Amino acid sequence: MTMSGADAGILGSEPVHNPEPSGSVFFAESNWLAQKAAGWEATLKKPFMDENFLLNNDTARTLYHQHAAKMPIIDYHCHIDPKEIYEDRIFRDMTEIWLGGDHYKWRALRSDGVAEHYITGDASPYEKFAHWANVVPRMIGNQLYHWTHLELQRYFGIFEPLSPCSARAIWEKSNALLSGLSARTIIKKSEVKAICTTDDPADDLKWHRLLKEDESFSCLVLPTFRPDKAINIDKPGFAEYLSGLGQVCGFQIDGLTTLKKALRKRLIFFLESGCRITDHGLDYVMFEQGYDADLVLRNALAGKVPTREQADAFKTDILCFLAGLYREHDIVMQLHFGAVRNNSPKNFQKLGPDSGYDAIWGTADTGYRLGKLLGHIEDQVGLPKTIIYSLNPADDAQIDAMIACFQDDSCPGKIQHGSAWWFNDSKEGMTAQIKSLANLSVLGNFVGMLTDSRSFLSYTRHEYFRRILCNLLGTWVENGEYPDDMDTLGKMVEDICFNNAVNYLDLEIPD
Amino acid sequence: MTMSGADAGILGSEPVHNPEPSGSVFFAESNWLAQKAAGWEATLKKPFMDENFLLNNDTARTLYHQHAAKMPIIDYHCHIDPKEIYEDRIFRDMTEIWLGGDHYKWRALRSDGVAEHYITGDASPYEKFAHWANVVPRMIGNQLYHWTHLELQRYFGIFEPLSPCSARAIWEKSNALLSGLSARTIIKKSEVKAICTTDDPADDLKWHRLLKEDESFSCLVLPTFRPDKAINIDKPGFAEYLSGLGQVCGFQIDGLTTLKKALRKRLIFFLESGCRITDHGLDYVMFEQGYDADLVLRNALAGKVPTREQADAFKTDILCFLAGLYREHDIVMQLHFGAVRNNSPKNFQKLGPDSGYDAIWGTADTGYRLGKLLGHIEDQVGLPKTIIYSLNPADDAQIDAMIACFQDDSCPGKIQHGSAWWFNDSKEGMTAQIKSLANLSVLGNFVGMLTDSRSFLSYTRHEYFRRILCNLLGTWVENGEYPDDMDTLGKMVEDICFNNAVNYLDLEIPD
Amino acid sequence: MTMSGADAGILGSEPVHNPEPSGSVFFAESNWLAQKAAGWEATLKKPFMDENFLLNNDTARTLYHQHAAKMPIIDYHCHIDPKEIYEDRIFRDMTEIWLGGDHYKWRALRSDGVAEHYITGDASPYEKFAHWANVVPRMIGNQLYHWTHLELQRYFGIFEPLSPCSARAIWEKSNALLSGLSARTIIKKSEVKAICTTDDPADDLKWHRLLKEDESFSCLVLPTFRPDKAINIDKPGFAEYLSGLGQVCGFQIDGLTTLKKALRKRLIFFLESGCRITDHGLDYVMFEQGYDADLVLRNALAGKVPTREQADAFKTDILCFLAGLYREHDIVMQLHFGAVRNNSPKNFQKLGPDSGYDAIWGTADTGYRLGKLLGHIEDQVGLPKTIIYSLNPADDAQIDAMIACFQDDSCPGKIQHGSAWWFNDSKEGMTAQIKSLANLSVLGNFVGMLTDSRSFLSYTRHEYFRRILCNLLGTWVENGEYPDDMDTLGKMVEDICFNNAVNYLDLEIPD
Repeated sequence: MTMSGADAGILGSEPVHNPEPSGSVFFAESNWLAQKAAGWEATLKKPFMDENFLLNNDTARTLYHQHAAKMPIIDYHCHIDPKEIYEDRIFRDMTEIWLGGDHYKWRALRSDGVAEHYITGDASPYEKFAHWANVVPRMIGNQLYHWTHLELQRYFGIFEPLSPCSARAIWEKSNALLSGLSARTIIKKSEVKAICTTDDPADDLKWHRLLKEDESFSCLVLPTFRPDKAINIDKPGFAEYLSGLGQVCGFQIDGLTTLKKALRKRLIFFLESGCRITDHGLDYVMFEQGYDADLVLRNALAGKVPTREQADAFKTDILCFLAGLYREHDIVMQLHFGAVRNNSPKNFQKLGPDSGYDAIWGTADTGYRLGKLLGHIEDQVGLPKTIIYSLNPADDAQIDAMIACFQDDSCPGKIQHGSAWWFNDSKEGMTAQIKSLANLSVLGNFVGMLTDSRSFLSYTRHEYFRRILCNLLGTWVENGEYPDDMDTLGKMVEDICFNNAVNYLDLEIPD
Repeated sequence: MTMSGADAGILGSEPVHNPEPSGSVFFAESNWLAQKAAGWEATLKKPFMDENFLLNNDTARTLYHQHAAKMPIIDYHCHIDPKEIYEDRIFRDMTEIWLGGDHYKWRALRSDGVAEHYITGDASPYEKFAHWANVVPRMIGNQLYHWTHLELQRYFGIFEPLSPCSARAIWEKSNALLSGLSARTIIKKSEVKAICTTDDPADDLKWHRLLKEDESFSCLVLPTFRPDKAINIDKPGFAEYLSGLGQVCGFQIDGLTTLKKALRKRLIFFLESGCRITDHGLDYVMFEQGYDADLVLRNALAGKVPTREQADAFKTDILCFLAGLYREHDIVMQLHFGAVRNNSPKNFQKLGPDSGYDAIWGTADTGYRLGKLLGHIEDQVGLPKTIIYSLNPADDAQIDAMIACFQDDSCPGKIQHGSAWWFNDSKEGMTAQIKSLANLSVLGNFVGMLTDSRSFLSYTRHEYFRRILCNLLGTWVENGEYPDDMDTLGKMVEDICFNNAVNYLDLEIPD
Repeated sequence: MTMSGADAGILGSEPVHNPEPSGSVFFAESNWLAQKAAGWEATLKKPFMDENFLLNNDTARTLYHQHAAKMPIIDYHCHIDPKEIYEDRIFRDMTEIWLGGDHYKWRALRSDGVAEHYITGDASPYEKFAHWANVVPRMIGNQLYHWTHLELQRYFGIFEPLSPCSARAIWEKSNALLSGLSARTIIKKSEVKAICTTDDPADDLKWHRLLKEDESFSCLVLPTFRPDKAINIDKPGFAEYLSGLGQVCGFQIDGLTTLKKALRKRLIFFLESGCRITDHGLDYVMFEQGYDADLVLRNALAGKVPTREQADAFKTDILCFLAGLYREHDIVMQLHFGAVRNNSPKNFQKLGPDSGYDAIWGTADTGYRLGKLLGHIEDQVGLPKTIIYSLNPADDAQIDAMIACFQDDSCPGKIQHGSAWWFNDSKEGMTAQIKSLANLSVLGNFVGMLTDSRSFLSYTRHEYFRRILCNLLGTWVENGEYPDDMDTLGKMVEDICFNNAVNYLDLEIPD
């Protein structure tokens, strides 16, 4: 292709703008200001986080206000301490309830160059709060920004954005209200009907039992069976853990048979205490066979560190065994994977685990190994209801494609892709998870949101999720991609917000 | 940073809203309803899937209605049976044509807890249809939702959404029309000008030859050379397959030389029958050298299972050989990878392959190995025109960056990133593929959509793609990101919808 | 679930549209045209790339025009030749300045089937330009489309879209202006205050020193220490490179001690020449220990090719050593990874590296190994300020989650996720990087954009980034997700555009 000189002539009638290279290389503002004055650019700016926050069309608003907002909450995965519920803990100040254990916020503070003294150290509560107020305005686009203000609005009636300017006033007003916001008060106000805590098999579940007996508090507080420490044969402290677990059970754990006996015994104890769900944190999806799990375990108990393959084979064996138990008792198995933990050795030394030094692993072959693992379990013992979560958002499609391979007629949505987890619980992350699930599965069967939280104020995360869900559904309707059938849509929203989780976990919700 | 007490004073003039913690923690609806009454929230809601479905601006509408809609269809990749075209199959009822072989729909039904009896089992056709109608409304956001209604609209004139309420009426009305909708009638109505089926090298192509001779039917029905069974040395039945292929060829396949001779012979037979395109389904992108492919093959024929590395080396060798043949004959090579198949052993036993138990592998180093493989082929035998598809949407950027490394001046867009494949053929998946391709390549050279379908009603997937494409282009224009140059845009749309594929495959389209 | 026949009766009152299967299967245009005539579909179409290009709401416009546009540029990563700045190079024609070294454009031309003769070959400058003008209109959605027009607008005052029709006129008008657009003129017009070039440790930095002495040119032109050739022990030419580096240093490099001594010596020389930043191009994130790095090096110098593990161990050792030096001197470490280079052996032979044959690797375990590597460095020598870039957009979440694990109180945002790199510097890629960073970190601390360019006209990439940034922030504000607090927003924009980079690099910007 070549251009003839004549082309220039043709162009003569389509003049190229006069070049003005000697002037500013950037536009004058005049045109834009003129347009602005003429009013043609007027946009309908929404107020900051009002009642229609994230609800950008009429259908979304109707779905949220008339259907989602009225549904109670099932918080089927969190890290709340049941003792604090039983004792109806009162928080001294906003720093204690907000910054006491929330490593999401600690990470943000560290990212802002704040010294550890003002995060987990000995600084005064207000100094810590002020640092938090200082970083918040620059966290535009972060879910913590929205959670912070949802919590201020819903629990304290404060609609002012948190900033260095408003810090002192918000500190005083919110602190003054905290004495009236005990753990149980927050739970009641938030209309939480069931909370599944996270518990070790060796736990005596004292607080769950006391809560069950307490007729003054109707919210279900149920234990979750999370036997990671009995499975992580390659982690320090494994042998010591099994020794302690054996003591709880009344017999020594010296091999695979006694380990399984112990886990079964503790699971039954959990079931008697109301357990409806279990949880497994896997570094990555492992699937390995061809090693004698009993021998690997005996060697580990004798102090011999297993190879990665041996450890994976042991874990595969135990997980398959437990899945069979879960299925037998019709309870839910959660599989979480993809976290790489304690990345900073220096700070792990100082602060221990769960202090904000975890990240995303980014493994390959997730789909391949997930298929092998689930196929093996289905083949050997049958699959229980299973919820799968990856910390890597790039795994979403692999999970959503895989869950359809293991559905059966025991219930709708037997295998679930769990709500956007941990680092992904942003507006973008939740939207991506919902869209991927909708593309590859039946969205109407989704069991919905959980908080995964370590703070009693986190129930607004359910509201955040519900707004995002309703907005997405509303957008599809307004865009002509789904009929304007509010009965079906309203029921679907109510189901995803509440009913599906109740049915999936087979909960008996008190009136 | 610390806050002085004086900050609270500054805030005195910017009052924090009065907290009302004793009331409801959620907003009253009053404000919102007042706003709604005042009308300021009125939105222009689009009707459900009308003629402007997915076309959200004027430019998009013009591009679609004046350019895309009028173009015929080249369906260069599908799994339609040519016998059914030749015999002009009539379908008994909607269950037969919709649910008879479409494992997309089977997966949705299983995800809804429907028993296999109502999916692939012996339930009555209407029972199966009713179950499908029951799940459809909860599949909001799923491409099957849109395909279902596009098919009802375009082939049956039914504009009512499918649901349990409308199931019976739609069943009766659509069934009544099916006798007039033979395979050929659908193809003609859909203005399909060429169909490339998927065929084994051992196939006698009887139906393709009969169709070629049939002057009453002008749509090209061309075979696709898909020699997976001759390459998958690590899959069960490999030796038996080669034995049968040898019989078709008239000589025994006992090593690499005779295998290549057989593949060449069959390819030439395919070419004589009009073949313009080939297809390879790879588990993952393999590249391995340093093993004697002939020896690996002879061992496999003698019953010795190859290692993964040996199998990969054999596959690399054969694929390179075939690529050279394809180049020699100027036909297209398709490479599909990233599927992990038959994940449920239990259901594979019952239902065999392609019954809805496949998922996404999620491999690493895709870009790295793809570069090695294509570089090796280019170096050894030269690259044919090549279309690359991954089932993992996280591979898109890797593919789009890589194809630019192997373009040459034999034709525009010689190496293509294929349209969003299988699990990715949703609105989101297709949009992501088009955007990634546009970012990293020359979108105007894209060969566009295919159905990959197993159903004659699937041609509306081309309409779905075209609407998505036109909407994206229109949005860019309306947003000032591309000039309002409808001549260029219209031509580009027509090319991507039809002309590019005709030129790329070098088809002679009958008038 | 089964449907009774009565369902059809219910439907009687909700009529299914009359099927019209004998007519066209597609919609008539009449409805749409009627709607269009009625005017209800009118949309506000934006003009092509005017002053509000990519700024889709009022807040975005204010942020851009009143805050972003006025900020000067720090271009802390590019591949500009300092000699051309010193000599104030004048470009002969648009082909020389646009197509002389820009392999982004070469790839687009190859994707269009253009022969190498018209790309890197001996065709006339206008022939090359005409081919570029020919492909541009079909590059809709590509960042090159926007860059091309931003450059024509800002440096040549040409607002006509480039196309085959306008090619000749634009060629003539722009060429005529080039004599007035020397390298230094472009830099001054673009208000660039600092440029960090990319330099080898063996470089004598002659041009940087001359530029420093030249009082007529106030823009800082600083060297970047990029010791890849001293680290890539597995690449051809490694031993020869070390031999040359030893000559520059005045002693022989015969093992790890002398190599480290040489690198330290050259780094100090760079620091004396104003170096504030370093750069490392890693194929992938490696972390390996357990090999004697000195022995691996001595073997390599003796001609023995290291295994991948040995090479990784050597690289880990050297990188950790250098990181300690960088920290000691408080300069920035950049880590780039994920490129797979020179994919086409044929064209690497002809054209050498950096000629458009690179792509994305797509590695696994990026997060895992990045954590190990950074944790090891932190533990051993302390981390310098670090900016991390991956070529694979699927790594974004892994990087953003990981950087929060290594922040400390030495400065805000000590560990940064670098701006969308190379193949990802599109509107979509930059938006995704900003959103991911905002979700997982503190966006307000981001050091912002760089050009990574090989052309003096590329400074408009900063404008492109700033428009995208302002639009995203503006959208959040208009959507009620962030307060309409223009003081905070304006400062945040100014910081991300300029101030953060100045502070992070500790630059003394001349007035």
